Amino acid sequence: MYTVAIVGATGAVGAELLRVLESRSFPIKTLVPLASARSVGQSVTFAGREIPVQAAGPESFKGVDFAFFSAGATRSRELAPAALEAGAIVIDNSSAFRTDPTIPLIVPEVNADALGPEHRLVANPNCVAAIMAVACAPIEKIRRITRLVVSTYQSASGAGARAMEDLLVQTRDVLAGKDPIPAVLPHPYAFNLFSHNAAMEENGYNGEENKVVFEMRKIMERPDLRLSVTCVRVPVLRAHSMSLNIECDTDDIAADLPAIREALATAEGVRLVDDAVANHYPMPNEASGADDVLVGRLRADPSNPAALNLFIAGDQLLKGAALNAVQIAELIASRT
Amino acid sequence: MYTVAIVGATGAVGAELLRVLESRSFPIKTLVPLASARSVGQSVTFAGREIPVQAAGPESFKGVDFAFFSAGATRSRELAPAALEAGAIVIDNSSAFRTDPTIPLIVPEVNADALGPEHRLVANPNCVAAIMAVACAPIEKIRRITRLVVSTYQSASGAGARAMEDLLVQTRDVLAGKDPIPAVLPHPYAFNLFSHNAAMEENGYNGEENKVVFEMRKIMERPDLRLSVTCVRVPVLRAHSMSLNIECDTDDIAADLPAIREALATAEGVRLVDDAVANHYPMPNEASGADDVLVGRLRADPSNPAALNLFIAGDQLLKGAALNAVQIAELIASRT
Repeated sequence: MYTVAIVGATGAVGAELLRVLESRSFPIKTLVPLASARSVGQSVTFAGREIPVQAAGPESFKGVDFAFFSAGATRSRELAPAALEAGAIVIDNSSAFRTDPTIPLIVPEVNADALGPEHRLVANPNCVAAIMAVACAPIEKIRRITRLVVSTYQSASGAGARAMEDLLVQTRDVLAGKDPIPAVLPHPYAFNLFSHNAAMEENGYNGEENKVVFEMRKIMERPDLRLSVTCVRVPVLRAHSMSLNIECDTDDIAADLPAIREALATAEGVRLVDDAVANHYPMPNEASGADDVLVGRLRADPSNPAALNLFIAGDQLLKGAALNAVQIAELIASRT
Repeated sequence: MYTVAIVGATGAVGAELLRVLESRSFPIKTLVPLASARSVGQSVTFAGREIPVQAAGPESFKGVDFAFFSAGATRSRELAPAALEAGAIVIDNSSAFRTDPTIPLIVPEVNADALGPEHRLVANPNCVAAIMAVACAPIEKIRRITRLVVSTYQSASGAGARAMEDLLVQTRDVLAGKDPIPAVLPHPYAFNLFSHNAAMEENGYNGEENKVVFEMRKIMERPDLRLSVTCVRVPVLRAHSMSLNIECDTDDIAADLPAIREALATAEGVRLVDDAVANHYPMPNEASGADDVLVGRLRADPSNPAALNLFIAGDQLLKGAALNAVQIAELIASRT
């Protein structure tokens, strides 16, 4: 039985971490919910009990076995060293450590092997990368992927609980005939969509897109993988969808499709949703609350004999964040 | 001055046709709004006058110079011959005649030359194809396009006025804590998205996707153009957005980007919206009601030296339907 701390316990991912830890019966003897000083006075509910939130600080981690960080990169950089120092294993949901070559970036279904006993700090991937990697790994087992052209349909939850609320408030306003006033994200969001709000970087891609490229290469252990990524926010609450054009090392992908379909149908963490008769494919409303990444619209690309198309949807707060973090903890616990 | 009939005058596109004809001062002496028998008793407003809707039938076109059809393919097949017989020029917004090699499929900014004096029946393209062609034509002038990988973010309006209302009603229900009940489209739509509702066809692509492939080749006069298209409905009311990966006949697209940017900035029917500092790119809320197709996020694709990425948004009811139809009529009128 473990003592588990959650830094960012009052956020959208923090709330999911509590639910996932409870529903998966992670063996917890003491839960330590931590947040910024302004959240002190609040409490969280875990296993039927109200537990008061404490202010996160360097002294918060005494006796902690697992510390989940989900309060942004600055907070992680500031407090993860203290948690490690106190002997905790740190599972960090922020981008703070993902690019560090000494720190593993783990999606358990994909690269559990990259997590060794020496790793006390593990990075949890960006939500788009985690969801996409789950869908791509079974394909990679059949045929080496050479290039991905990806367009995303990302939900509000990736920008936090306040962005989800912003979408709801704006939508209410529009339905009441008022102009939507963006409070969290930079553009009107009700019945609208926009290029991902991450800051633009020098290469013409935004921070989200560049993260996805870097992290997919690291998770898939394919530094040579070529990716073109366009990240877009759509007015959906908590699941990310993606349209993937996947080029493989073949000149006849059609011949591989039956094996790829079978690999997806049986892969851990994947649910094949591919019913042409009912026109039923992955949708964010069905991905929301689901552990599996929904995968469908598997078909050969008529414009390139090496490529296939796929449409996927995964819960941003679960496989894109909290669930994957808890699975990392389970993996570590199973080895000790 | 012309006598102009509109078949489907009470629909979403019909209403836009009336607005566009009026705002562009198309020289009309008599307007004949036509619809199905169940719309008789309604009237439309045009140039400040209420005009009663008449039941569309083979006898409706006497003295009509231009007949706009926007009541579905079945209605077009049924009544277009009578309109032609009566001497009208027919501009058909349905898919009925688009694949007929003797009938031109026109986007005036792109292929006005394909419209000859002998053509009395002109097809107006699918909304996705029309919007995409406007954005691609200026690029094609700089460098031959070899392949397009497209993912769409399509609005409710493409499925008609009732689908727009369905989205609003479902959204109200969800905000009130009720389950959304799809009335027009096959899946929950509020805060959700789904693969386009067109019927799936034998090649694994739906009817919308196959239309886009065929029509882009015809409009661009490029039967060899390779396309991979994924059509998705998003909870947006009336503008379609698209993420385009465009491969060209070059091994150094980066060298062409300045010329392509200039071509897009000056192209008829295009508005370049590409402000990295403000993170301001094409959005459906700004495309709604606009004549121009918004084009932005122009950047080289790091995964392929021949490719660039683009994000575009265009009003489905305007450039995707009514505006383009009226522009075709203007083109014909300008030549007579």
